[in-house]
Amino acid sequence: MPPRSTIKDVIITPVAFHDMPLLNSVGVHEPWALRSVIEIVTDKTYGLGESYGDSIHLDRLQKVADKLKGRSVYDTNAVYQLCLDSLEGDTSTGGDGMAGMVTTAFVADKVFSPFEVACLDIQGKLAGVPVSDLLGGRVRDNVQYSAYLFYKWAGHPGQPDDEYGAALDPAGLVAQARKMIDEYGFQAIKLKGGVFPPAEEVAAIKALHTAFPDLPLRIDPNAAWTVDTSIWVAKELEGILQYLEDPAGEIEGMAAVATQAPMPLATNMAVVAFSHLPPAILQKAVQVVLSDHHFWGGLRKSQTLAAICATWGMRLSMHSNSHLGISLAAMTHLAAATTNVDYACDTHWPWKQRDEDVVVDGALKWDKGGVVVPTAPGLGVELDRERLARLHQQYLDCGLRKRDDTTYMRKFQPDFSDKIPKW
Amino acid sequence: MPPRSTIKDVIITPVAFHDMPLLNSVGVHEPWALRSVIEIVTDKTYGLGESYGDSIHLDRLQKVADKLKGRSVYDTNAVYQLCLDSLEGDTSTGGDGMAGMVTTAFVADKVFSPFEVACLDIQGKLAGVPVSDLLGGRVRDNVQYSAYLFYKWAGHPGQPDDEYGAALDPAGLVAQARKMIDEYGFQAIKLKGGVFPPAEEVAAIKALHTAFPDLPLRIDPNAAWTVDTSIWVAKELEGILQYLEDPAGEIEGMAAVATQAPMPLATNMAVVAFSHLPPAILQKAVQVVLSDHHFWGGLRKSQTLAAICATWGMRLSMHSNSHLGISLAAMTHLAAATTNVDYACDTHWPWKQRDEDVVVDGALKWDKGGVVVPTAPGLGVELDRERLARLHQQYLDCGLRKRDDTTYMRKFQPDFSDKIPKW
Repeated sequence: MPPRSTIKDVIITPVAFHDMPLLNSVGVHEPWALRSVIEIVTDKTYGLGESYGDSIHLDRLQKVADKLKGRSVYDTNAVYQLCLDSLEGDTSTGGDGMAGMVTTAFVADKVFSPFEVACLDIQGKLAGVPVSDLLGGRVRDNVQYSAYLFYKWAGHPGQPDDEYGAALDPAGLVAQARKMIDEYGFQAIKLKGGVFPPAEEVAAIKALHTAFPDLPLRIDPNAAWTVDTSIWVAKELEGILQYLEDPAGEIEGMAAVATQAPMPLATNMAVVAFSHLPPAILQKAVQVVLSDHHFWGGLRKSQTLAAICATWGMRLSMHSNSHLGISLAAMTHLAAATTNVDYACDTHWPWKQRDEDVVVDGALKWDKGGVVVPTAPGLGVELDRERLARLHQQYLDCGLRKRDDTTYMRKFQPDFSDKIPKW
Repeated sequence: MPPRSTIKDVIITPVAFHDMPLLNSVGVHEPWALRSVIEIVTDKTYGLGESYGDSIHLDRLQKVADKLKGRSVYDTNAVYQLCLDSLEGDTSTGGDGMAGMVTTAFVADKVFSPFEVACLDIQGKLAGVPVSDLLGGRVRDNVQYSAYLFYKWAGHPGQPDDEYGAALDPAGLVAQARKMIDEYGFQAIKLKGGVFPPAEEVAAIKALHTAFPDLPLRIDPNAAWTVDTSIWVAKELEGILQYLEDPAGEIEGMAAVATQAPMPLATNMAVVAFSHLPPAILQKAVQVVLSDHHFWGGLRKSQTLAAICATWGMRLSMHSNSHLGISLAAMTHLAAATTNVDYACDTHWPWKQRDEDVVVDGALKWDKGGVVVPTAPGLGVELDRERLARLHQQYLDCGLRKRDDTTYMRKFQPDFSDKIPKW
């Protein structure tokens, strides 16, 4: 093993960045989103990964990090085995900062992911090629993302209104979409639903369709609906929705809806691990898989998922959580090098303050609703250590150690129920 | 794109090397085996691939080769697209040198494979790491192969006996196995069957089991048996066979045998392309897939196949045709970096003359039935241009332009039938 690829150190830094009061079926986003920045250091360079920031996850990451020194950044098979080994006997749940919405992802894949991304970042830097080249070469120069709309409050209670203001009805969502599309040029729209009664959300989608007749639309209630409600919504939105995302829960629920929905069903809740694929395919439960390298085990395993989708005639899109620039770079390289990404990917990017990140500005350029695929070696993003220190200080100061949308919501609506399905 | 990764030239050289009169269900190996050596040249280095040598295949390879100049060796997605494009409207069949035994492999995957291997060879050389590192790092230092036994004549008619001599009964096969195991140390045995009536081949396997009680055994009649015959053989060999390979034809035939066979069924005939996986899995037709990077679209797609096997609870082994050192290196890197290679891989290596190859001696070391995984950059094998020229001259002189075991057999047994199933 050439010494330049040997791992000398691994540094995991939890960070917090401002988030807006975005509503979903289990509550509302807290004022701070948590993430972890993973830095793998070799003799001559370093590589970056980004993952969830909940304490349980940080502990799991650290356990693996402690064992990585002396390994090669090319030896991702061994890193994966270390993840499996370090989790043996770990029966803790959660920790992924997905607010109980993705509960059955395979823990080892979530822990492995940022280490793999950081290893590929270094492999790219050592070879002088972008990560997309390590994944087979980019098949597109611009990776399209969707305008990811949320019902939201005007601002966090007790704080001034944020720049997006309130969106609690169709008109508010149309205004939100317009602002976001004006700034980024998005060419597809996704609405996070499951917040208001289904008829109101159907009305919102229809209003968006009227306002943006040329843009494909999606709605994602995070399994807040029963099978019957899901089928009713699906029929109401026939000819309007590009796909319907996680209307009902579990593979069985999705399969039941799929038999009657006129549009494809997409999921990032019912199928979130390789072990879910055989039963989901057998039951014809989903037509679109929303991949996410953060829980599908990194970039290469996400490409395996993509190949499985192509083989079984399913389509591919991409899920996101609140994230920073390292993740956006990784998502963009992955989508750039994956032939069968069939839809604009999701991103929470617009909900982040423009100047708040851990990477140096300028590497990730938005153009016409997409990110221009970086062509610098590796991920193409560099750590801004001053910013990293600031976001780490925010983590220390904010006091949050796990994402909990429900508890935060109950501060203001004590009787809020996170029961699923709701309607 | 760094100029050092730009493809300057692609050279395809057909070669022929001596082969022995090995019997199978459709005939007998001719005196020469054909292969193609693919050399991709960049500014500073070159990469190697090896594939089939039939004229139809050579023409297809050349069509793609003509379009590769100026591309990056990292851009394998684009190379694959070129393969698809260049084959549009190509309705020719065969060309894979598999004697009609693998007829439904996806042609683009067969054409792409040697180019991908050569690109990875260069990527490894540029990064200073072995190809196994580009595939996730080796999980084993020695890749085990099986003793691949054949019924055979003593020598080609009209020529002196070859060094292995005749093997036309159980005693002959046991002697063949002993010679091969003495030389290579193989720890698993595979018999190519479908040559003599099933009861004789059952007796042969039993004789091998008596002679080598500790070694796992397999038999592969290349679908020469009916479903009923396959089930009879399976029951006769219960507790003796590690797996039963392609007893009956097609997914349906395999599925029917699988319901009653006490051992796993393996295939490199019924499932030879990604499109075969969904129906085969649905019908529970096979328990072991014999991958082969030459027709599964190269090393990375073979790893995708491996991941699919792991996901659906199938096991993985590896198929081989007559091949030279470039293929052995590629097979070894692939198996070294693929966690779930569950069995000793197949190779025709012992049937090749020891001094007949296109690579420089010494890079591929046999030890205890396996090949020590090369750790030099890339595939770890270098072209011996004098030897390449000699094997190319043999190709020019031998006159063979496609593999045709049946026609050759009929020279000596005019009434030979290649009808499948035979029993």
